[in-house]
Amino acid sequence: MILHGNIVHAPVLGELEVRTQGWLVTEGEQVAGVYDTLPPQYADQPVTDWGDALIIPAFCDLHLHAPQILNRGIGYDKELLPWLETYTFPTEARFGDCAFAERVWKAFLNHLWAVGTLRFSAFATVHKEAAWRLMELSEQSGLRGLVGKVNMDRNAPDALREDTDASLADTEELICRSREELRRTGLILTPRFVPSTTERLMEGLGRLGERYHLPVQSHLAENPSEVAWVASLHPDIPSYTEVYDRFGLLRQNQTIMAHASYLSEAEKCLLQERGVTLAHCALSNTNLSSGIMPLRHHLEQGLRCCVASDVAGGNTAAVAASVAATVQTSTLHTLRHPEHAPVSWVEAFWLATRGAGQFFGDVGAFLPGYAFDALVIRPDRLDALMERTPAERLEQFLYHGDDRNIAARYCGGTFLPMPFPLT
Amino acid sequence: MILHGNIVHAPVLGELEVRTQGWLVTEGEQVAGVYDTLPPQYADQPVTDWGDALIIPAFCDLHLHAPQILNRGIGYDKELLPWLETYTFPTEARFGDCAFAERVWKAFLNHLWAVGTLRFSAFATVHKEAAWRLMELSEQSGLRGLVGKVNMDRNAPDALREDTDASLADTEELICRSREELRRTGLILTPRFVPSTTERLMEGLGRLGERYHLPVQSHLAENPSEVAWVASLHPDIPSYTEVYDRFGLLRQNQTIMAHASYLSEAEKCLLQERGVTLAHCALSNTNLSSGIMPLRHHLEQGLRCCVASDVAGGNTAAVAASVAATVQTSTLHTLRHPEHAPVSWVEAFWLATRGAGQFFGDVGAFLPGYAFDALVIRPDRLDALMERTPAERLEQFLYHGDDRNIAARYCGGTFLPMPFPLT
Repeated sequence: MILHGNIVHAPVLGELEVRTQGWLVTEGEQVAGVYDTLPPQYADQPVTDWGDALIIPAFCDLHLHAPQILNRGIGYDKELLPWLETYTFPTEARFGDCAFAERVWKAFLNHLWAVGTLRFSAFATVHKEAAWRLMELSEQSGLRGLVGKVNMDRNAPDALREDTDASLADTEELICRSREELRRTGLILTPRFVPSTTERLMEGLGRLGERYHLPVQSHLAENPSEVAWVASLHPDIPSYTEVYDRFGLLRQNQTIMAHASYLSEAEKCLLQERGVTLAHCALSNTNLSSGIMPLRHHLEQGLRCCVASDVAGGNTAAVAASVAATVQTSTLHTLRHPEHAPVSWVEAFWLATRGAGQFFGDVGAFLPGYAFDALVIRPDRLDALMERTPAERLEQFLYHGDDRNIAARYCGGTFLPMPFPLT
Repeated sequence: MILHGNIVHAPVLGELEVRTQGWLVTEGEQVAGVYDTLPPQYADQPVTDWGDALIIPAFCDLHLHAPQILNRGIGYDKELLPWLETYTFPTEARFGDCAFAERVWKAFLNHLWAVGTLRFSAFATVHKEAAWRLMELSEQSGLRGLVGKVNMDRNAPDALREDTDASLADTEELICRSREELRRTGLILTPRFVPSTTERLMEGLGRLGERYHLPVQSHLAENPSEVAWVASLHPDIPSYTEVYDRFGLLRQNQTIMAHASYLSEAEKCLLQERGVTLAHCALSNTNLSSGIMPLRHHLEQGLRCCVASDVAGGNTAAVAASVAATVQTSTLHTLRHPEHAPVSWVEAFWLATRGAGQFFGDVGAFLPGYAFDALVIRPDRLDALMERTPAERLEQFLYHGDDRNIAARYCGGTFLPMPFPLT
């Protein structure tokens, strides 16, 4: 496949590579190369010409809650723990109803497609059937997803609290079934967070991770009250991070921890050692009064970071909006901590494409051999009144664009239509 | 006119009035009343039934720059003063070209209509012809606008710096012409800000204000460097606020000052005395590293405040997004200043409707005798999957809705179609 247009990507943190009126060649699922002039060996082949549109890497979202897509924008008068009790858990309890889950999952996957998130790692709910259905639909959608059946066996309302053994058995069943039946969708171990998982459950999940070589996702140090709660639950373990580590849940280079705003130096060293990816959720951290993650500081210390939406702590699944919010909260952080330069939009764009994509391997930039996941971006009529460089067009899309600006989506080397067309 | 639907408005700061499946009756341009059951005298009249949709007051935006609609999302790596030099002034200089201005103004007015801003106070540019054309087009649009020809006679690039007498003469010409020819659009005096207006220009504008009973809009104490600059330009005047006051530019109950983030107690007293409306621009203050305005504190001190977009310091003209950003930055402010409770979304909604609307008189709520300016809001397919109260639907619209959720617009008692249909 040969595409022509304004090719913009960030192969390295902080560096934008722009090929104005360039060429992008794919082979199978992968990028073969990007060129200023089309190499002669491709001269006779058909070209998809996107004209003045931008061709950018698709977004990857490493932290969001699929059932909470319904709750975007609800209840930000509360902090994390009461917010979970009041708004989140009652909604998640409804996913015991398979017909309801089916409707929501289809709308969820359509929505991710619409906003340009073509790879993701999502929390489903505790329900085995609902989680399995999300995995099946994700497979059908053409998106590339990691899906977690949530595990919770303490500090949860009755409707969501699992028996420890049943939670582990359900998880193992989904692991095996997904390996047999699915190709593009994987299971990710998903203890909700330390306060809702007993030591025995965490230990069992750690063993499953080891046995099946599985990735892990959870929450870490989002809110001071939560951090204090974890300390009181595990007085014998020195830190929140070490609780996960104790039970084998910081799996080397295969772990996503959302938030990570309140960390000791020792925790940061451990997270770096384990190659944990920290999912920075700027909108959520603001909405739930959690504070501002010291993102620049984390990056300077060599921690792996990415930008994620954290729906529904985040009020929108559009990762572009989280890119803008990352710059905005980082800017406010710098006013208090001038020693930390604010994160630029180019850096935040990298964090939402290549930074997140590396969790999936060679994903998130247009380098040879990388998966070809892309969005084609066009300005609206108003923005088109002004001549702009491709970089400026991308900046404007990130700051005020929406799904109407996305003219086409490619995932894994092929054009991706809306997964579940509306009837 | 009789409308039926879920009527939601905020007549008082912090209080949301909801009439589920209620009735709203208008007489001429005004609201006659809202009712839970339709009074018998209206029983035989035709009803516009909006079903489950919300009927809410339209947004008022008291601070935005019309030419900068082109620059939304551009250049937030810089603070205010270099941002103006690098991005803003070169764009504004293009409005000497009347054909260009015409295209942009139409797109600007269409865009305000689309996002539900039906009353506004906007800066045009220094150009008399362009400013006049915006006034004419605003009149045609059906929106209710105050438009300012910008005045600048110092510290501006050559292309925008005016001769003092010419600036005053041009302004007076527009005042007279608009009074003769326009009915719904007024001129508002618009010294850009103290650093770009000489004392003689400010004095002349103050005299025009007095002679023609005109409102005034400008900027105040947005950024520490700007505040320091004003102090160095006017060492004999004790504060930024008093510079405007010295020259008659804090006109009683008729003045809008944008930002007002860095004020002394004496300045706050003076602003309160003069009944100045402070336009809080949360997105802009974040994007340009200006800081967070202490909104709760201002409100508690009895200052008049509203929420405004400040395009293009703000990255979107959608006032709903500025409502959300107001809550978000206020939430972050509270983390540092726990003595100031965060501003709630209900308060921020008031600030964007009635809080701003009062500058125009009885505008911004559905009280008897108030202008009937309204938006009809419908959830998208995804949000419609969940049953919600009308208040929750409004909250979701503010946090992630867009112009596609606005099914209809009414201004001054009549249905408002798109002003300049696209051909």
